[in-house]
Amino acid sequence: MELLARARQLESEGRSIIHMEVGEPDFPTPDPIVEAGRQALMEDHTHYTPAMGITELREAIAGHYATRFGCRVDPQQVVVTPGSSGALQLVMGVLVNPGEAVLMADPGYPCNRHFVYLAGGDPVTVPVGPATQYQLTAELVEKAWTPNTKAVMLATPSNPTGTLVSRQAMEEIHEVVKSRNGVLIIDEIYQGLVYGGEEFTAASIADDIFVINSFSKYFGMTGWRLGWMIAPREMVAAVDKLAQNIFLSPPTPSQHAALAAFTEETQQILESRREAFRARRDFLLPKLQELGFEMATEPQGAFYLYANCSSLTGDSFDFAMRLLEEEGGAITPGKDFGSNRPEQHVRFAYTTDISKLEEGVKRIARFLGRS
Amino acid sequence: MELLARARQLESEGRSIIHMEVGEPDFPTPDPIVEAGRQALMEDHTHYTPAMGITELREAIAGHYATRFGCRVDPQQVVVTPGSSGALQLVMGVLVNPGEAVLMADPGYPCNRHFVYLAGGDPVTVPVGPATQYQLTAELVEKAWTPNTKAVMLATPSNPTGTLVSRQAMEEIHEVVKSRNGVLIIDEIYQGLVYGGEEFTAASIADDIFVINSFSKYFGMTGWRLGWMIAPREMVAAVDKLAQNIFLSPPTPSQHAALAAFTEETQQILESRREAFRARRDFLLPKLQELGFEMATEPQGAFYLYANCSSLTGDSFDFAMRLLEEEGGAITPGKDFGSNRPEQHVRFAYTTDISKLEEGVKRIARFLGRS
Ligand SMILES: Cc1ncc(COP(=O)(O)O)c(C=O)c1O
Ligand SMILES: Cc1ncc(COP(=O)(O)O)c(C=O)c1O
Repeated sequence: MELLARARQLESEGRSIIHMEVGEPDFPTPDPIVEAGRQALMEDHTHYTPAMGITELREAIAGHYATRFGCRVDPQQVVVTPGSSGALQLVMGVLVNPGEAVLMADPGYPCNRHFVYLAGGDPVTVPVGPATQYQLTAELVEKAWTPNTKAVMLATPSNPTGTLVSRQAMEEIHEVVKSRNGVLIIDEIYQGLVYGGEEFTAASIADDIFVINSFSKYFGMTGWRLGWMIAPREMVAAVDKLAQNIFLSPPTPSQHAALAAFTEETQQILESRREAFRARRDFLLPKLQELGFEMATEPQGAFYLYANCSSLTGDSFDFAMRLLEEEGGAITPGKDFGSNRPEQHVRFAYTTDISKLEEGVKRIARFLGRS
Repeated sequence: MELLARARQLESEGRSIIHMEVGEPDFPTPDPIVEAGRQALMEDHTHYTPAMGITELREAIAGHYATRFGCRVDPQQVVVTPGSSGALQLVMGVLVNPGEAVLMADPGYPCNRHFVYLAGGDPVTVPVGPATQYQLTAELVEKAWTPNTKAVMLATPSNPTGTLVSRQAMEEIHEVVKSRNGVLIIDEIYQGLVYGGEEFTAASIADDIFVINSFSKYFGMTGWRLGWMIAPREMVAAVDKLAQNIFLSPPTPSQHAALAAFTEETQQILESRREAFRARRDFLLPKLQELGFEMATEPQGAFYLYANCSSLTGDSFDFAMRLLEEEGGAITPGKDFGSNRPEQHVRFAYTTDISKLEEGVKRIARFLGRS
């Protein structure tokens, strides 16, 4: 955050900054979605909607699971939310009582801890590393489980690591969680941004899982503030009630715009973007490895590379700050993602085009005295 | 809520329903705002913004206080939020620690209690009635104060009562709260929808007050999900941090659209709508009084009349339900707003045009056997 502010400041002073820290696609929202949004405004879709979203969108989302994954989802269990941020708050709000713990991987998305705190719960982070592709496993969950544990949260693909959880690993974790009467929460907000490995949804594993998703990343709609969850049937009423109280409704024009997200036309645009992300990853990964950054496995999703930089520095925050000041290269230090050896890690985001990434790599090389 | 669902159901079955329960303007968003929204989409304003909103909008809001109230507000203290709902959550989140109490009037906006609960605090409701225009006073606040009290919340105009807090009363309450090291929160989300009495803003009383506002009601932008607060200077950083964690940013197209909310052209539209609301109130109030509903004072704001119906029924919920079933007249029973003699009160919303209100009054008369 400090670094982000400094990068903005330098830029406003006229410095050239290569942005490899930004957590949103550089692509604009696909035209058909923008057009649907403009149309919605013309048709006065500007009033409150039901707290769980308009029926058409809940049905369209359910349809998406059928088309893409051959998975049946009941529209009644689809809850449209203000960003997946809204979904995460609702899930923790309905699940977690004061004193109850939620297990999650470290490194991980930092806000997840806050959503648990907000509900009065304890986020219990479990250190993960290259041995498990920076993901929780059934074994790790079993070891970390205590009588206070209420839920386990996984993200696949993960921010910041870009790694996936395999179907088998998820099934095993689900078994463990179920056997202990806990609840599994799967963050699929980078779903669709996957460049290898099997694609599946947690919704196809069991119907007692909270599945979180977003229009922000794959669909390129960050600023529209729209996400969703699939909630277990018996939790829908509680989720609805909380949403009525704290959000009233998700943004209405955004909901109507999102109806255009699942069309053939939009899907083609999104798939070509996926290929662009893949090409960027394929460019950046080996270059960084050559420079001494270690990525244990090939990260197969999202738009992040989480690198061990301990052969280059013992203090990733200082490293990132100096790279910014000296060369105008912006990356994210590990400490934004937890307390599991953060000083040995940095995150690279490939949310900028290859020509910029080339320049970024050059600057890092120069910074390391390698050019 | 139950009643709302039933009203929708009856309507979907083809029954004619006169809606006097809806808490949002029936008017669409003013054209210049819609046009600005469409333009924003064309210009790809679809990415995340800073958590506190875009600078231009924070400045435009500050400018609005200067123009409308001659009141100087520092744009740095203006925080744009996802609806005033978002602002209310942030305020309670940064102010209230577990076990601390927030005083508020009963009847009042029900979600306020939830925002306090969410922060782990205790909403302490103080019964108010016609003697104080259904508002808290300095005396009531003093009496209700305990060592755990952290903050006091007022709404002017109030939902559900439509009554105002005078400048003098607010100053007195502010004095009491300050002398006890508490914090005053003023909900001004119906600001602008005032049909009598002086218009002022709490921001002109002191700079240690949290002032909450919204684009939903006066500006006719409910579905856009946009509100704001003015936060005391020393609280801005905490508010920003919480907003970054739980919301990321307010909806981006909405923020750009709202830039058109303060223009001369839009203000003219809004002022003519205010006159329409005033005419509706002037029509509805005496008609309801003739029928036996008691409104102690002339409610001067928002678009609500909160009526004592005890001469007509001892059970306002049953009354409202039967009015709906038998005559298709939808009003809100008191129990939605607290536990201060709710069975003796109902709320009428004049968010529908006079011809519909005429028909509504006819149906109520028939229901009461008076036609
Ligand atoms: C893992 C993860 N979850 C949730 C979010 C929240 O995104 P949004 O609220 O835009 O859906 C983000 C955003 O960066 C994220 O990286
Ligand atoms: C008193 C009061 N406060 C806050 C809100 C929240 O409105 P919004 O989130 O649309 O600004 C409402 C909506 O009805 C209200 O009546």
